[in-house]
Amino acid sequence: MSRTNVEVDDLVAAARGGSPRAVARLISLVEDASPRLREVMSALRPHVGHAHVIGLTGAPGVGKSTTTNALVRELRAAGKRVGVLAVDPSSPFSGGALLGDRIRMSDHATDAGVYIRSMASRGHLGGLAWSTPQAIRVLDGAGFDVVLVETVGVGQSEVEIAGLADTTLVLLAPGMGDGIQAAKAGILEIGDVYVVNKADRDGAAKVRRELRSMLTLAARPEGAWRPPVVAIAAQSHTDLDKLTAAIEEHRAWLDDSGTLRQRRIRRAREEVEAIAVAALRSRWEPQGGGRLDELAAAVAAGESDPYAAADALLG
Amino acid sequence: MSRTNVEVDDLVAAARGGSPRAVARLISLVEDASPRLREVMSALRPHVGHAHVIGLTGAPGVGKSTTTNALVRELRAAGKRVGVLAVDPSSPFSGGALLGDRIRMSDHATDAGVYIRSMASRGHLGGLAWSTPQAIRVLDGAGFDVVLVETVGVGQSEVEIAGLADTTLVLLAPGMGDGIQAAKAGILEIGDVYVVNKADRDGAAKVRRELRSMLTLAARPEGAWRPPVVAIAAQSHTDLDKLTAAIEEHRAWLDDSGTLRQRRIRRAREEVEAIAVAALRSRWEPQGGGRLDELAAAVAAGESDPYAAADALLG
Repeated sequence: MSRTNVEVDDLVAAARGGSPRAVARLISLVEDASPRLREVMSALRPHVGHAHVIGLTGAPGVGKSTTTNALVRELRAAGKRVGVLAVDPSSPFSGGALLGDRIRMSDHATDAGVYIRSMASRGHLGGLAWSTPQAIRVLDGAGFDVVLVETVGVGQSEVEIAGLADTTLVLLAPGMGDGIQAAKAGILEIGDVYVVNKADRDGAAKVRRELRSMLTLAARPEGAWRPPVVAIAAQSHTDLDKLTAAIEEHRAWLDDSGTLRQRRIRRAREEVEAIAVAALRSRWEPQGGGRLDELAAAVAAGESDPYAAADALLG
Repeated sequence: MSRTNVEVDDLVAAARGGSPRAVARLISLVEDASPRLREVMSALRPHVGHAHVIGLTGAPGVGKSTTTNALVRELRAAGKRVGVLAVDPSSPFSGGALLGDRIRMSDHATDAGVYIRSMASRGHLGGLAWSTPQAIRVLDGAGFDVVLVETVGVGQSEVEIAGLADTTLVLLAPGMGDGIQAAKAGILEIGDVYVVNKADRDGAAKVRRELRSMLTLAARPEGAWRPPVVAIAAQSHTDLDKLTAAIEEHRAWLDDSGTLRQRRIRRAREEVEAIAVAALRSRWEPQGGGRLDELAAAVAAGESDPYAAADALLG
């Protein structure tokens, strides 16, 4: 393991200097839940807070990866360094990236201003809820102007992207089923910008219309952000400029309204809490069994109930 | 709130006596994270451990609800009392059941031997990871012979059904995309019985063949369970007897191999841990801000890093 020979400060400096390899190693430390993360996060501290964190979510099939790809191209054209985290909670067992994501991202494979990483929960500690905010922090501290977090689906509490992002994009597309899908996913509560992808297909106008009317009905307090609906066709790179304009507008509102600070406190909360909970879990679950195992066995045998066992664990 | 007038012991006795209303109230206490759960779980303790907990999972569109419905019918014909929890992690905002699930279940609406409940995370405490095992415990303690837990998708760590169930059924169907979908969801690791639904449709034989060959390739230790592949057509109630036979066979193997006890200890672990973590969170997050909020604000302002803040939270 050459990794242990590299000083954390050097790694952080190299990542800030634009080395994709250094960024990759830092994120691997996050994925591996390395004890050195403590040093990493301390070294990154003075550099974080610059990146605009954009979440991108939607049901399978709406074109999330294609849209991410097109958005990266648009942001690159504006001279921004872009980090992408493709978060896949549906893949706890693969322990790594899916080929698909990377293939679709190959447009940017030779661009040093773009860093793309697929993350899959490896099942240890708090999984993606634990690693995602820390990976965002690494990319932020490494100097990326935008961190795009692409998640599969919405509403999975493991990675509640709406709780992590400054700006949350919710993608829809025609042909993905009727209105109940939208209601089911709870998307009307989480989007800052709604994106109707595949706008060149049949049914896109209907999706926009329905979405607009549902958004109009939603009660929003005075001064609240009113999420726009932007139609694009990511595949043909149509109207991506409208999407970046909407994102910029939201960013300006975040700054002006003080919401940016609130959201970042919320993100920090999630991060601190996930680290604290993981630390406790690792105390409860030393390798090869421990107090929790004993208590669980007693509950399973009917000798105790889970509340009494939890009391014993904490007390 | 008449709820507070009812003694927990009476409620448990009524639930065990077959009152669906009493069962519903007990599960509502779970969903509401009631402080009275402590008493409820203590009162249920002598009665739990009887139910066979069957998890049913698969991608959207494979026919999970239809299969649940058909399986309930089959189990009822065998004289078993069946509790169903339809767990929907994609609906954190709805705070309740979706109409769809209930409509599809209306076959059993007048059958007192069947209790069906849709559960949606309300976002408090540990969400479904917290409430699902406790709801299973309520149904188990109420005397149901089988508890069926239907989850949307696989691999969402919030409700890792494979960690909760005695027997996990993984559903597939033809026309749901190619092999990568199966690999993506990590389903080859979690199923005890694989069910190919819509077996009367084109492509079902191919799904069975691919699945069988993938399962054959998977390395399994000596004496391990070898998951069968059962083809059914839930809509027309075709071959459901083969599915219940496979489930029975797995149950016998669980008993003989000692695996049942291990799985139940694992379930108890999840339950105890979720309760303990929720208890800690509620200490950290008193209403209207607290220590965690202060620490998060310091992290967001760049004055601290998340590890230092987590240390401060725990210390």
